[in-house]
Amino acid sequence: MRHLLDVDELSAPDVESLLVDAEHHRSSYEAARVGSELAGRSVGLLFAEPSTRTRVSFELAVRALGGHPVVIDPGRSSLVKGETLADTVRTLAALGTSVLVMRHRRSGAPWVAARYFVGSIVNAGDGCHAHPTQALLDLFTLRRAVGTLAGRKVAIVGDLLHSRVARSNAWTLTADGADLWACGPRPWLHGWEKLAGRLPAGRRLTLTDDLSKALAGADAVMALRIQKERMASLDLSLDEYVAGYQINADSMRAAASEAVFMHPGPVNEGIEVTGEVSRGPRSLVLEQVRNGVPIRMAVLAHLGRPAG
Amino acid sequence: MRHLLDVDELSAPDVESLLVDAEHHRSSYEAARVGSELAGRSVGLLFAEPSTRTRVSFELAVRALGGHPVVIDPGRSSLVKGETLADTVRTLAALGTSVLVMRHRRSGAPWVAARYFVGSIVNAGDGCHAHPTQALLDLFTLRRAVGTLAGRKVAIVGDLLHSRVARSNAWTLTADGADLWACGPRPWLHGWEKLAGRLPAGRRLTLTDDLSKALAGADAVMALRIQKERMASLDLSLDEYVAGYQINADSMRAAASEAVFMHPGPVNEGIEVTGEVSRGPRSLVLEQVRNGVPIRMAVLAHLGRPAG
Amino acid sequence: MRHLLDVDELSAPDVESLLVDAEHHRSSYEAARVGSELAGRSVGLLFAEPSTRTRVSFELAVRALGGHPVVIDPGRSSLVKGETLADTVRTLAALGTSVLVMRHRRSGAPWVAARYFVGSIVNAGDGCHAHPTQALLDLFTLRRAVGTLAGRKVAIVGDLLHSRVARSNAWTLTADGADLWACGPRPWLHGWEKLAGRLPAGRRLTLTDDLSKALAGADAVMALRIQKERMASLDLSLDEYVAGYQINADSMRAAASEAVFMHPGPVNEGIEVTGEVSRGPRSLVLEQVRNGVPIRMAVLAHLGRPAG
Repeated sequence: MRHLLDVDELSAPDVESLLVDAEHHRSSYEAARVGSELAGRSVGLLFAEPSTRTRVSFELAVRALGGHPVVIDPGRSSLVKGETLADTVRTLAALGTSVLVMRHRRSGAPWVAARYFVGSIVNAGDGCHAHPTQALLDLFTLRRAVGTLAGRKVAIVGDLLHSRVARSNAWTLTADGADLWACGPRPWLHGWEKLAGRLPAGRRLTLTDDLSKALAGADAVMALRIQKERMASLDLSLDEYVAGYQINADSMRAAASEAVFMHPGPVNEGIEVTGEVSRGPRSLVLEQVRNGVPIRMAVLAHLGRPAG
Repeated sequence: MRHLLDVDELSAPDVESLLVDAEHHRSSYEAARVGSELAGRSVGLLFAEPSTRTRVSFELAVRALGGHPVVIDPGRSSLVKGETLADTVRTLAALGTSVLVMRHRRSGAPWVAARYFVGSIVNAGDGCHAHPTQALLDLFTLRRAVGTLAGRKVAIVGDLLHSRVARSNAWTLTADGADLWACGPRPWLHGWEKLAGRLPAGRRLTLTDDLSKALAGADAVMALRIQKERMASLDLSLDEYVAGYQINADSMRAAASEAVFMHPGPVNEGIEVTGEVSRGPRSLVLEQVRNGVPIRMAVLAHLGRPAG
Repeated sequence: MRHLLDVDELSAPDVESLLVDAEHHRSSYEAARVGSELAGRSVGLLFAEPSTRTRVSFELAVRALGGHPVVIDPGRSSLVKGETLADTVRTLAALGTSVLVMRHRRSGAPWVAARYFVGSIVNAGDGCHAHPTQALLDLFTLRRAVGTLAGRKVAIVGDLLHSRVARSNAWTLTADGADLWACGPRPWLHGWEKLAGRLPAGRRLTLTDDLSKALAGADAVMALRIQKERMASLDLSLDEYVAGYQINADSMRAAASEAVFMHPGPVNEGIEVTGEVSRGPRSLVLEQVRNGVPIRMAVLAHLGRPAG
């Protein structure tokens, strides 16, 4: 494991090992202990899109391992002088940055960066494509809340078309044995037949545009953020979307009585979910945030080593 | 003391204790010693308005106590995706940030944040309302320069209407026994009658639009920053303001011969004060800046503890 | 040596001592050792122009010496409230910042800052004027690659008119005994006659607009970045510039067979140089970047001391 570009590049033992380590890091982080895994090393944080939770959790993870986070704001860097991504990452490697965490508007950008970076690239979200550390922290959160996923039904609901979180989760949750249901209006299921077809044999992924089917007996429900500017790709108005797909006390009645609720954040309360559910007793939303730091510590501790 | 939202929430012993601690932190900071009060802990710095001295002095204070400052630039964070302040602070708490320092355009925003944040909120300036750490450092600076304030006359001059610094200072200086005079053009005294009326019995606060009365025999004169765009709330031109209210060698002649000059910065030289006074031998302006770090160390060391 | 404003203020022994120290810092940085030269001290980084390599390398250098970098983004600081540069640097000194690294659009700005700053100013590039740490790292890189420069021919090619890198290099390279050739279209040689005339006796600097003469037998070729918006100061089109002055496999044939290639970055591949050369086996471009951290460590360790 040299880079973390997407979850489908991780073996099952890799994933288990990261989850075990994250448990250990969680205790140590909460006890305010600072490790030495990254002592004297720097980790570049290149976020070409706004972010609070992901950027801050990586920054805190680097510090908790004794390293130096170096924030590169593309708007204040040589990227605005027309420097290419290849040159930027070659430069960061030459400066001694051993790991580069990047969020980028373009799907695939971290793979491009990985071709030119001597150290390790961590994909912190690329376009609508992948968000591997989010999928790992979701898996970690779900395992801690409901135990093994084998045979448990999980529903992911919302704008599947544009969601890198959903795509990465589809891999890790089914790999862990979950019976995964992906649900949203038809146009947002586009591409998911193909994705389902590419999963290894034995994985269980069902697509539906019927929320009640997706939620029926579900042990966990994950809602995805709706961005109003992406409603244009639907025939539905926002009101119609809410009527058909909002997660609320009413729609949650179809799920198992102990079903947990998840959301990658930030939540649009009153749109994809009501505040009653997203801040209710079965919500894991803040627990997902809390687990972001230890999961990223586990990833960085695995990757952290001096650039060649 | 869980939060520091405004100075009127501090008891007299709280204030004394912070001033004593600040003296100790001042020596240790100047000797470049790094403490461990915040070791392994992070402090969020959410500054929704431009700032140099306040932001940097908090950042240096966090580091001097061994902690990690985490700067959250609202323009690069999820706040631009429409995330509410409540969600942002809940997220920061879940990420393990134990103290959140915030500057906000809206008066009252830190009180809103305090409702949702598991750790401690420090108000670093909210709208035209309060700026408690500035008032504490002003008190600390004044005490070091002139000793006890009991019976000493202090004049605050300028745009009292929009000044959070003046409002917080009105509380701490009168609590410490000063005979406080607040002076500015009539329209800028709006609301100060009410403020004076709400002070506990025995406090001394006099309002006047006559600079010579405010300065007569004063032991300390504090000028407030004039922002040109706020002159619109006056009937005066900038020239008339300068003629009537500028602190200069001439107007300072009314004050005590050893009177000191203060200003929260940044100074508009030639407007509310001349450079001759603001950089003269009796100016405490840079001393105020210097005391910003130890006062904030004292506040953070009191509050710093892990989020629940 | 209190400030580092430009290289012509350094004595020959100063330069040697910095290069020796940089060699030591290079090893220690690559071994991820953190020094204590700046322990408990902060270094301000005021970059009023976008930058990746210079800003990040200073930031990493501060951290590698155990100090705290404090990034001041002028767009988010009190400079946007109209605070003068003099007030900003006085404020930073009062806050306890012992060294201030600054990049500024205006030539001469660091000299202005030095008049008001109690600690040390490091010029990280001012307008078209000087960039001393770049010249030092270029010298360090060249010495490591080709040994002593006495009698070696070095050619600097491109937009000499606007290049602070070229101006600082003209001093250090000729001081070290190089036979320096500065080459570009005539209008871009403007001012260089005067610069050559001011060099101490015995220095060798030849100006030419003929690339083949500049490169003939050169041991090192340094290309400068071409900014399209500056082509307006020439009678040439970009194509004509490329035809006459591009460093490529063809033009490099005039140079010595082992000639090295340098560039301060970021490189415009296909304009001032081809990718074949800038990323070829004789390119030192990434080596220049790599040497940025240890050179800046050497400079900061020399200057770092508490503000008065």
